[in-house]
Formats: sequence, C-alpha cells, structure tokens
Amino acid sequence: MLDYPALIALAEIIRRGSFEAAAAALGVTPSAISQRIKGLEEKLGEVLIQRGPPARGTAKAMRLVQHLDQVRLLEQALDPTAPKPTLRIAVNADSLATWFPPVMTALPVLYDLLIDDQDHARDWLGKGQVSAVISSDPHPVPGCEVTPLGHMRYYAMATPDFIARHFAGGITAKTLAAPAVIFNHKDAAQSRWARLQTGQRLHPTGHMIPSSEAFARAVELGLGWGMIPETMARPPLAHLNADLPLDIPLYWHVQRAMRQSLAPLTRTIKERAAADLRP
Amino acid sequence: MLDYPALIALAEIIRRGSFEAAAAALGVTPSAISQRIKGLEEKLGEVLIQRGPPARGTAKAMRLVQHLDQVRLLEQALDPTAPKPTLRIAVNADSLATWFPPVMTALPVLYDLLIDDQDHARDWLGKGQVSAVISSDPHPVPGCEVTPLGHMRYYAMATPDFIARHFAGGITAKTLAAPAVIFNHKDAAQSRWARLQTGQRLHPTGHMIPSSEAFARAVELGLGWGMIPETMARPPLAHLNADLPLDIPLYWHVQRAMRQSLAPLTRTIKERAAADLRP
Repeated sequence: MLDYPALIALAEIIRRGSFEAAAAALGVTPSAISQRIKGLEEKLGEVLIQRGPPARGTAKAMRLVQHLDQVRLLEQALDPTAPKPTLRIAVNADSLATWFPPVMTALPVLYDLLIDDQDHARDWLGKGQVSAVISSDPHPVPGCEVTPLGHMRYYAMATPDFIARHFAGGITAKTLAAPAVIFNHKDAAQSRWARLQTGQRLHPTGHMIPSSEAFARAVELGLGWGMIPETMARPPLAHLNADLPLDIPLYWHVQRAMRQSLAPLTRTIKERAAADLRP
Repeated sequence: MLDYPALIALAEIIRRGSFEAAAAALGVTPSAISQRIKGLEEKLGEVLIQRGPPARGTAKAMRLVQHLDQVRLLEQALDPTAPKPTLRIAVNADSLATWFPPVMTALPVLYDLLIDDQDHARDWLGKGQVSAVISSDPHPVPGCEVTPLGHMRYYAMATPDFIARHFAGGITAKTLAAPAVIFNHKDAAQSRWARLQTGQRLHPTGHMIPSSEAFARAVELGLGWGMIPETMARPPLAHLNADLPLDIPLYWHVQRAMRQSLAPLTRTIKERAAADLRP
C-alpha cells in the first residue's frame, strides 16, 4: 500500500504552497512533513515537490494527489462522517458565472475549481490533475467519459447608444469594425458570430476583459459590443440581431475511475443543464 | 527610429497568437508579416517571437509592444481620430468585480485587462508588460509611481443556516474548522480574519473558487463561510461578526513613462476609489 499520511502531507504542501503551511494545517512539525515527503520520494525514486516558493508538485505528485482524492471519495461513501475529500474540477468561465454554482451542493466534498480560460482542461484531465471538466471540447480524453450537456446560447449585444452610434448603417463587415469586448485571445465567439452575420471571416478587435461578469459590465458601459450568454442579458443591453443567436455546446468529461463516486454530481449537472441550457 | 509597421505586426501576432490571424487583422499577407518580423529581429539582433502555436512574444517583444502602446497614446492626444491604442492593465479580481469597470470609460483606449490572482503584477509591471496595476501591494516597482487608493472592506459571512449549524458555539478556533470558501492558494483573507477573531494562527480550509462572483454565490449556497467585499454583501448572507471587518489596502501603480498619458484615468480612479472604498 501507498503511505497515505505521506500523501496527505504531499497534498497539503501542493495546496498551500509551503511545508510550513502544510505542517500548521496538519498540526505537525515542518520536519515531520519533510520526512514524510523524503520517504515517499525515496520509495518512488523521484522528486515530487519543486521546493519553491511556492512549493509545487511534479506531474507524478499531481497524480498521487488525484489518487488520494479518489480514495477519500470512496471512504466518504463508506462513512459520511469522514473528512470531506477534495474534488478538483475545471469549469469554463461562463458556466461558472451562470448555471454551474448550484450543482456544487450535490456532493459532500470540498471543491477546488480551476477556470479553464486557456484550453488547458484537456491537458489537466489527461494528466489526472483534475477529475472532471466542463468545456466546449467534444473530443473524449483517453480514460475519460464525455456527456453532452446541451448548448449555451449567446446573443451579440451592446447598449442602444452604442448601436445607434456604430450600427446605424446595419450590421455589416464594415460596421463590425466597431470596438468589441472579447474575453481573451482564445475567445472566438465574436468572430464566429460576425462570420454568421456577414458570411465573411472577420477579426473583431477591442477590449480584452477576462471575467464573465466584468465582460458583461463593459458591454453595459458602452465600451463595445460582445457575445452575452442569454441568461446574463439584462437592460441596458440590446440585441444587434435578435434572430441570430450563437449556440456553444458544453460537455461534461469525467475520469473513468471517478465515474461512480461522481454519479450524484453527474446526475445533478445533467438535470441543471437540461433546465438551464438549450438542447 | 524604430520600424513602426513592424511593431504593429509584432503586437498583432502577440495579441492574436498567430502570424495568420495578425495578417488577416492587418489586411496583409502572412509572408509580409513574416518579413516585417524577420527584419525587426535582424535589426535588433534577437528573437522576438516564439513560434507556437500559440505564437508568444519574448520579454523584449513585450517591451516593444508596450512602447508602441505609449506612442499610440501620445498620438491619440494629438489627434483624437487616430486608431485607439491598447492599454494593458492588471487589476485584482475583487476590484474588477466591484468598483473598477466604470472607470474604463475615462480614456478612449482599448483595454487589455489581466486579472492578477497570482501576484504576478509586480513582475509584469517591472518587465513593462503592463502599463499600470491595481493591487494590494504597497511597494513601488522601479520606474513606477504608486498612489494609495483606500481600503476595500470585507466581512466574514455565511448563510444563516450555515451559521446556525457550525457556529452555534461561537466563532472560535474550533468552530472555524467549518469549511471556508477561498479564492485561491494565495488568498489569505480568511486566515487573516480568523487570526483577528481568535488571536491564533489558523489555516481555514475549504472550497477553492477563483472567481469573485462565483465565490460569493458559493457562500450564498451554504458551501462555506468566506470574506465578502462589503459592496457584494446581500441576502441571504449574514455576518459572522459584524464588528470585525477586514480592510485590504489598494494601490494604483503606473509606469512613470505613462503617467501623463494616463492622467485622466488616474484622476477617475482616485475619484471612484474615494467614493467606493474606505479611507
């Protein structure tokens, strides 16, 4: 068997960024923590922690922490009074800003959420650094199962004043040179919609606002036009073209080893998605 | 003089992540873009782009793009009809979620916001990768000016149900073992408040939710207690101890070379901070 007290120390160091903080959290001395890690590293024949600051886990360490979390989830099912395990999940920013938070009450775990705003989620899942992912990527990752959840619907929106100023001549390739609001360099929603609208490959430019809520506020403040999830549309936002939504599919990817432990969460996510997303 | 068309190409490649996207945005061929970059690299005697994907700028390239943005801001002051320059700023997540967005209307620029949730802002500022930063770090960065803005006030909050279940025995070192909501591994607000409350060094553990709004929603959903900015406090959130706020100072750091161009933004930020933050 693996040395579980050592894995617990490893997980705390990685989560807290230092041996001292991990020792304080576990109520032991820093040298006890060091010895546990040293023993584990010697047994496995490789370095597990890049001493920082902050201290960081190697890829192998992340897999061990993931394994610890799986074992803890299984223990939780045996004994609901056991300490809550941690569940590391990557969620796309717009889901986290809209329909996702209530599903977190479905499982008695501590969530460690990562926001996937740079397409890292596949990589994290493949390396076992997260147990599950919500993303618009339909392709299964080896060792994982993928469930389609439906579509998040977006509309191109701006303030009425912005529309009057920039789009009096219609929504064309030319007028779409008006400033856009864009989440980050990976955000293709604005250019995808502009292509649907005009039939041309356009490259809208504008403000980069990498927070879903601040993105919507920037559009509300008249800084630009942007693609707003329909559930975040509210006055003073108005449609550029109410007949042309952009539907982005969402998928729930789960490590196969975690499928059973996460079944209540998967069920709740599917229910919530059925209610809040488009089919 | 520097080759400004080449700098414009460099900036577009870095912003868009590829030579092709930069070429499309500028309405020229990819080979024209390649030649501009090659010429610039030969003249400066160093590589500027790490060919990707995505293509990334070197530290030198980031300084050149920063310089281009400065020149464009100066041109904008001469001629308001000139193309809008880009202004790259790092903002802490809670400011972006509360008082910051309206100040963006103060300058006719395109904002490229970075969220500083990992203490990278000093580094970005020192390397010239951002022109200005809002952070809780009071220490000036060489070549930059720092202006204190006041304090963001936080309260420890949870749902009434969570408080009844976990804190019936008072708010003590023992009861503060209840699950907390924590922004990320760098977020010391919960442990700082727990120390103020109990006089002991505690290490609250719980959910990691790295989005200001989702953090507040997680607390509202009863997943844990957490430090909420006073302007985000709303039912059903209730105080753990309404007499014990935690005040976090905020500072505006500006590259000295950008001071004059950014004066209208600095003035608006100071006004807004005076209205929305604590002294």
